[in-house]
Amino acid sequence: MSNQLKIGLPKGSLQDSTIKLFAKSGWKINLHHRNYFPDVNDDELNISMCRVQEISRYIEDGILDCGLAGRDWVLENKSDVVEISSLVYSKVSNRPARWILAVAGDSPYRTPEDLAGKKIATELLGATKEYFESKNIDVDVFYSWGATEAKVVEGLCDAIVEVTETGTTIKAHGLRVIDEVMSTNTVFIVNKDAWNDPWKRKKIENINLLLQGALRAEKMVGLKMNMPKASLEKAMKVMPSLNSPTVSDLSDPEWVSVEIMVEEVVVRELIPELIDMGAEGIIEYPLNKVI
Amino acid sequence: MSNQLKIGLPKGSLQDSTIKLFAKSGWKINLHHRNYFPDVNDDELNISMCRVQEISRYIEDGILDCGLAGRDWVLENKSDVVEISSLVYSKVSNRPARWILAVAGDSPYRTPEDLAGKKIATELLGATKEYFESKNIDVDVFYSWGATEAKVVEGLCDAIVEVTETGTTIKAHGLRVIDEVMSTNTVFIVNKDAWNDPWKRKKIENINLLLQGALRAEKMVGLKMNMPKASLEKAMKVMPSLNSPTVSDLSDPEWVSVEIMVEEVVVRELIPELIDMGAEGIIEYPLNKVI
Amino acid sequence: MSNQLKIGLPKGSLQDSTIKLFAKSGWKINLHHRNYFPDVNDDELNISMCRVQEISRYIEDGILDCGLAGRDWVLENKSDVVEISSLVYSKVSNRPARWILAVAGDSPYRTPEDLAGKKIATELLGATKEYFESKNIDVDVFYSWGATEAKVVEGLCDAIVEVTETGTTIKAHGLRVIDEVMSTNTVFIVNKDAWNDPWKRKKIENINLLLQGALRAEKMVGLKMNMPKASLEKAMKVMPSLNSPTVSDLSDPEWVSVEIMVEEVVVRELIPELIDMGAEGIIEYPLNKVI
Amino acid sequence: MSNQLKIGLPKGSLQDSTIKLFAKSGWKINLHHRNYFPDVNDDELNISMCRVQEISRYIEDGILDCGLAGRDWVLENKSDVVEISSLVYSKVSNRPARWILAVAGDSPYRTPEDLAGKKIATELLGATKEYFESKNIDVDVFYSWGATEAKVVEGLCDAIVEVTETGTTIKAHGLRVIDEVMSTNTVFIVNKDAWNDPWKRKKIENINLLLQGALRAEKMVGLKMNMPKASLEKAMKVMPSLNSPTVSDLSDPEWVSVEIMVEEVVVRELIPELIDMGAEGIIEYPLNKVI
Amino acid sequence: MSNQLKIGLPKGSLQDSTIKLFAKSGWKINLHHRNYFPDVNDDELNISMCRVQEISRYIEDGILDCGLAGRDWVLENKSDVVEISSLVYSKVSNRPARWILAVAGDSPYRTPEDLAGKKIATELLGATKEYFESKNIDVDVFYSWGATEAKVVEGLCDAIVEVTETGTTIKAHGLRVIDEVMSTNTVFIVNKDAWNDPWKRKKIENINLLLQGALRAEKMVGLKMNMPKASLEKAMKVMPSLNSPTVSDLSDPEWVSVEIMVEEVVVRELIPELIDMGAEGIIEYPLNKVI
Amino acid sequence: MSNQLKIGLPKGSLQDSTIKLFAKSGWKINLHHRNYFPDVNDDELNISMCRVQEISRYIEDGILDCGLAGRDWVLENKSDVVEISSLVYSKVSNRPARWILAVAGDSPYRTPEDLAGKKIATELLGATKEYFESKNIDVDVFYSWGATEAKVVEGLCDAIVEVTETGTTIKAHGLRVIDEVMSTNTVFIVNKDAWNDPWKRKKIENINLLLQGALRAEKMVGLKMNMPKASLEKAMKVMPSLNSPTVSDLSDPEWVSVEIMVEEVVVRELIPELIDMGAEGIIEYPLNKVI
Repeated sequence: MSNQLKIGLPKGSLQDSTIKLFAKSGWKINLHHRNYFPDVNDDELNISMCRVQEISRYIEDGILDCGLAGRDWVLENKSDVVEISSLVYSKVSNRPARWILAVAGDSPYRTPEDLAGKKIATELLGATKEYFESKNIDVDVFYSWGATEAKVVEGLCDAIVEVTETGTTIKAHGLRVIDEVMSTNTVFIVNKDAWNDPWKRKKIENINLLLQGALRAEKMVGLKMNMPKASLEKAMKVMPSLNSPTVSDLSDPEWVSVEIMVEEVVVRELIPELIDMGAEGIIEYPLNKVI
Repeated sequence: MSNQLKIGLPKGSLQDSTIKLFAKSGWKINLHHRNYFPDVNDDELNISMCRVQEISRYIEDGILDCGLAGRDWVLENKSDVVEISSLVYSKVSNRPARWILAVAGDSPYRTPEDLAGKKIATELLGATKEYFESKNIDVDVFYSWGATEAKVVEGLCDAIVEVTETGTTIKAHGLRVIDEVMSTNTVFIVNKDAWNDPWKRKKIENINLLLQGALRAEKMVGLKMNMPKASLEKAMKVMPSLNSPTVSDLSDPEWVSVEIMVEEVVVRELIPELIDMGAEGIIEYPLNKVI
Repeated sequence: MSNQLKIGLPKGSLQDSTIKLFAKSGWKINLHHRNYFPDVNDDELNISMCRVQEISRYIEDGILDCGLAGRDWVLENKSDVVEISSLVYSKVSNRPARWILAVAGDSPYRTPEDLAGKKIATELLGATKEYFESKNIDVDVFYSWGATEAKVVEGLCDAIVEVTETGTTIKAHGLRVIDEVMSTNTVFIVNKDAWNDPWKRKKIENINLLLQGALRAEKMVGLKMNMPKASLEKAMKVMPSLNSPTVSDLSDPEWVSVEIMVEEVVVRELIPELIDMGAEGIIEYPLNKVI
Repeated sequence: MSNQLKIGLPKGSLQDSTIKLFAKSGWKINLHHRNYFPDVNDDELNISMCRVQEISRYIEDGILDCGLAGRDWVLENKSDVVEISSLVYSKVSNRPARWILAVAGDSPYRTPEDLAGKKIATELLGATKEYFESKNIDVDVFYSWGATEAKVVEGLCDAIVEVTETGTTIKAHGLRVIDEVMSTNTVFIVNKDAWNDPWKRKKIENINLLLQGALRAEKMVGLKMNMPKASLEKAMKVMPSLNSPTVSDLSDPEWVSVEIMVEEVVVRELIPELIDMGAEGIIEYPLNKVI
Repeated sequence: MSNQLKIGLPKGSLQDSTIKLFAKSGWKINLHHRNYFPDVNDDELNISMCRVQEISRYIEDGILDCGLAGRDWVLENKSDVVEISSLVYSKVSNRPARWILAVAGDSPYRTPEDLAGKKIATELLGATKEYFESKNIDVDVFYSWGATEAKVVEGLCDAIVEVTETGTTIKAHGLRVIDEVMSTNTVFIVNKDAWNDPWKRKKIENINLLLQGALRAEKMVGLKMNMPKASLEKAMKVMPSLNSPTVSDLSDPEWVSVEIMVEEVVVRELIPELIDMGAEGIIEYPLNKVI
Repeated sequence: MSNQLKIGLPKGSLQDSTIKLFAKSGWKINLHHRNYFPDVNDDELNISMCRVQEISRYIEDGILDCGLAGRDWVLENKSDVVEISSLVYSKVSNRPARWILAVAGDSPYRTPEDLAGKKIATELLGATKEYFESKNIDVDVFYSWGATEAKVVEGLCDAIVEVTETGTTIKAHGLRVIDEVMSTNTVFIVNKDAWNDPWKRKKIENINLLLQGALRAEKMVGLKMNMPKASLEKAMKVMPSLNSPTVSDLSDPEWVSVEIMVEEVVVRELIPELIDMGAEGIIEYPLNKVI
């Protein structure tokens, strides 16, 4: 077999959105009933689906060349790898996730210091210990399998360090957040030797380029409209296009066709403004990639 | 907090398509496990998911500023609100729904008059009573929890007034429709005070503009093709574009590029015609909004 | 009722992708809870959902005018119908499926000849018998209800002839493929009388045109970018566009806008090349039809 | 057809436990995919599955002869029927359910009086109005479709009157119960004419006898043991048997065999006591009916 | 390995009730995720789960020693096997199933003769052909994959021969039964050589004895009561016990304890009678086996 | 509140069978939607559902008084608790589970020694390290989140130490077991202080008595038959009753009634023997507890 790049992708809550992101970037991944050895339409790629907690360790050891991992677990594992980019995406909110310190809503604890001598449950053992050590607070941190929120409610521990994106689960359990221990998002990490291999580096850079292009496209749309020539200059000022707008003549010399790429979230404000300036026949269309 | 618009959206069978419609319009709504307090990417909006039967009452009372509701329940509740537009969409058919009067397929009843003295089950108590009163037919109308079709089959009532979009459920129970009591579709309704508040009115008008644009886009597509200049005039006549077509020169002076926005449903007729006129390289692409 | 075309479509594993393909082609099909009599937004069409094994027989008999069927079952049924086109699509891989001859991984059988005198289970009885007869191998072929893979494992037969697209199920049962009996894909078949009816033929040809256009669009995307005029000629050579690229002037006379239609699978190679040539503001957008 | 008894049974949350109760009593009910006309292995019975809210009305009107209904809805509908027995059973707890008045946990309301002038949502409109009228509190009671708990949380009303068995849902929404409006359980109710028909009355009484016997058996078990004759008198005093214990001789004249029927819930206390008195070979076995 | 009996059990709709029946008989069968090679707590048994259509063929061929099969498929396959007993059980009704000839409810066909020259779809090809041949009716019988009911409704055939237990599916499709082609139930069948092997025959007879005992127990219960000695003779006459009742003395010489085994279905009639005769403390308990 | 015993029960794969076991023992536990604070019909009990890995730690720390835990995790956590009994039960097989050392089926490793210098993935970190240390084999053991089987197949490690009850999952992944590291089953463990508290100790002993009685009853049944007096002595010898059989006279002086408690698994052998000795009217009935 010729050149091959071994890439690790996260199982679990990020799995579906990762596969969708790769599809938009040009790589169709097919999982089979049992997860291992997914198909991909690129003979140069070899994909492993891994637990998010373990992926950076496999890359550091060279079992994999590169992969997507949470920055939290790269740090927790103290993995010596190259981080080449950040990829903020998730199944819920496209916001970074946070590991927070939380206590029961009706507990007396208001600050990390109040927890001195108490029991803290967490899956992120190392980072949690470092957090309390850096504050010179003596606590009993212990490893917790699976979700920790209920353990506070049930009285099995006094506080937890748990990951959350929107805070919904924390709130649903009636917990109160008293500090943020770490912020995290997905990063593209590479094994040091792989990064020094020219073929692998080029391949990794291309994948990263297209992943970034697909991610950017998720937040953008194309907008096309007819505009009175008289309003063009004024309109140009309010249009936050990625590139300069494409302006084409129309058969009616008083009008031009204008096409721009904008962030989807501003469209709902922009369209009423454009209408006020006389724009007509406004259409919006979706994008796959923006590079 | 600054200005806030409280908007009520329907739970249940319309919920998913409503959330999709708002997403296409520029507002991403995230429901949590328990429905209340959905997130939305607009700090000026405050969304409540409500039962379709109750939404107009909350708007009339000013508990909500505006919302989407079925015209049937606005009338049934006799809610005093401003209706600013119609929005015909649904999970099934994009057709208005109808409240129909139906009887068992093997019953002797053929007209509403045949039901004099009989038992009629319905969830739309007021409108049903008015319907029979307007025809001077004396019947025993009683309130029915949930689906009524089975009650006719089981002999628990003689006729029902039930809502249907495609008639499938009515037919599946072997019932016969003998009249239509009311036709209904989704309407955008506003509380009278909110409508007189300039900030709220502007906000509501913008939302309505974008909802309409997204709805229109669901039925339209963009069509682009190369056309021999010689056929252009003739082609222009068959092309039912929303706006006048955009015609651009190509390097080959005998050919032009033509781009139009058309209803998707005519494309399957239009493409063979355009091919007959010499069109080549026809592509169709999807639209998000058409305003 | 006026002219009507009766068309049979496959139930089961191809059902969802068939309905999606028709939707992209311009026909929205709505299945009801019980499958028969699906709705379609074309009064000239009458759709039946049929078992893939039976569809060609109904078309041959004139119960249906035309339909989509697997070539395997057209041959197995020896149906006398007109095949007007191939449509390679599926729920998994967009590759043709194969009927293969497989044995237990730890069995001594290496060639079809090794199976002389043995028991072969299959659903494709006729073709399997013909296959062995053509090789002059005497075997005991028997009809097998449902999936056959387990039967080899359980010792209920010595070999199977079974259909597979990716080979995953075969491998998961630890079987070894020793020959391919037949390759198959979906074909558009027509009853002979229907094909001679001018109205039906025209209708069928239009449907086929649009199905092919929708299938082609699934593998293609639109690409638009700004390009330095100086690089244009060189770029033209690497751009594998379906038609010649559309080149438009921009306000900056050093730059042009270029738009091409390309196969999605080449985009991930093409974009890095275009960037090397100085392309900027590259966007990719999805297509519905390419004709 | 000969004599027939039309009996209405509750759909929904009580449906499965009702069918199980009838099965233990000797009547096997088979529901079909669509609920109406369930089969039962007794040609004299004709069963209708009905909404709990409606069942008493059908019995009062004589559409049904008898049935199981919640006492709450019998009262709400003011149905004039004969109540012949109580049947305390449910899917959760075998405790009576309660309609309670609840407010938001962080609201200022502590007593029903605090709600004067406020909005109360409930499905039990009549009983709620009567409750407040009897206390001379003027409130705005309105009918609420479906679950009301969320409406308090969302601010759509100030208090609710809702049914609860364990209080779990109320607590999960963070609500505070401030009063109990009504306690309810399942009752066996009969149409007045049916009760005066000797055949129907006899049939109803037999069904009731067996339902009661099956319900009683759910809480009881049989207990058999060998006991030293010397301890028998003492043991008799602690054994809370339904009937007097059955005592049989054993081959060893110092020992007897004792068999009793006891409530299952006391067994875990009783067995250690019996062992202390010298009991051996204690076995417990399940019962189907205890009459 | 020592002596082994290979037994085939039906997959599909009978699978769960078969496994439950064996469990009650003393053999715990554990299916794994993929069906083949189920575990059983008897080293002398080797179980294969097979399609009901194929099981008799494997037994005739000696691939299996014995098994449970439908009599319909034993006949259809013309399998030369020994039928040692009938086992009437199913997931629904404990009634034999019937293959019936059915037509559309609104069709003109009233008798089998009306179908001369018509198309009949069925999975039971051989028996259906024999049925029509025996009546000298010339029809076009063709093999139908899967459920046939819809095919009549869709006009793909004129009549079907389909299996039904309760008739529910037939009725739900609006079909009319015009004849019964065959009645069927589960039979215990044995390979001829296996039946002549003394060890296998003894093993098979023991399994059959316990299966029959478990099946019998499903319909029976134990009944125990205290009875005034004076009523005993009269009571003995109404008690349809399997064996003669067990009567034991009680400490009170006026009373006896009576224990009988009766069919569950008579209990609901018997208990009121026994109460009339003075019986007290009646309890009913479940049975596992009755032999 | 008066005396309270805090008991921890396992979540996850043992949860349902644990709750069923307690129900048979006399304690009805009701889990709510979110697991914590389950209800139980004993005011003296306070139940926590815990991860199996953590439960012994909570008991050692006195957060809980006692609980059911796997012996594997008691050892792994080196928890200093009192083990008062073993409870062999599970959702699958009622056999103890084993932690086994397994490698890829096609790997060269045959003995633990072959793994020197290799990577071993396991969740049971401590016990695995001790196992290899005790054999003086130097390996790289690392902690693995979740199921490990796939990791061998994917090449992410060389061997695993994983728990298995039936070996099915191991086999399904094509792995080969090369040693057993530890055997484990559920144990009833108690905090040392709680064990010294007389009230708690008495309560714990009673619970244990009834759990053991319920477990024993799962494997036993009651058997009752009529036997010719002449065969009684001979029959007594083959009947493996828990206690001495209960023999009662029947009206016919030639016959006696015999009742025994036997292991269910011998019944299928015993019944044919008893029939040979002339037994009649044999019935088997289920037991709830055997103490």
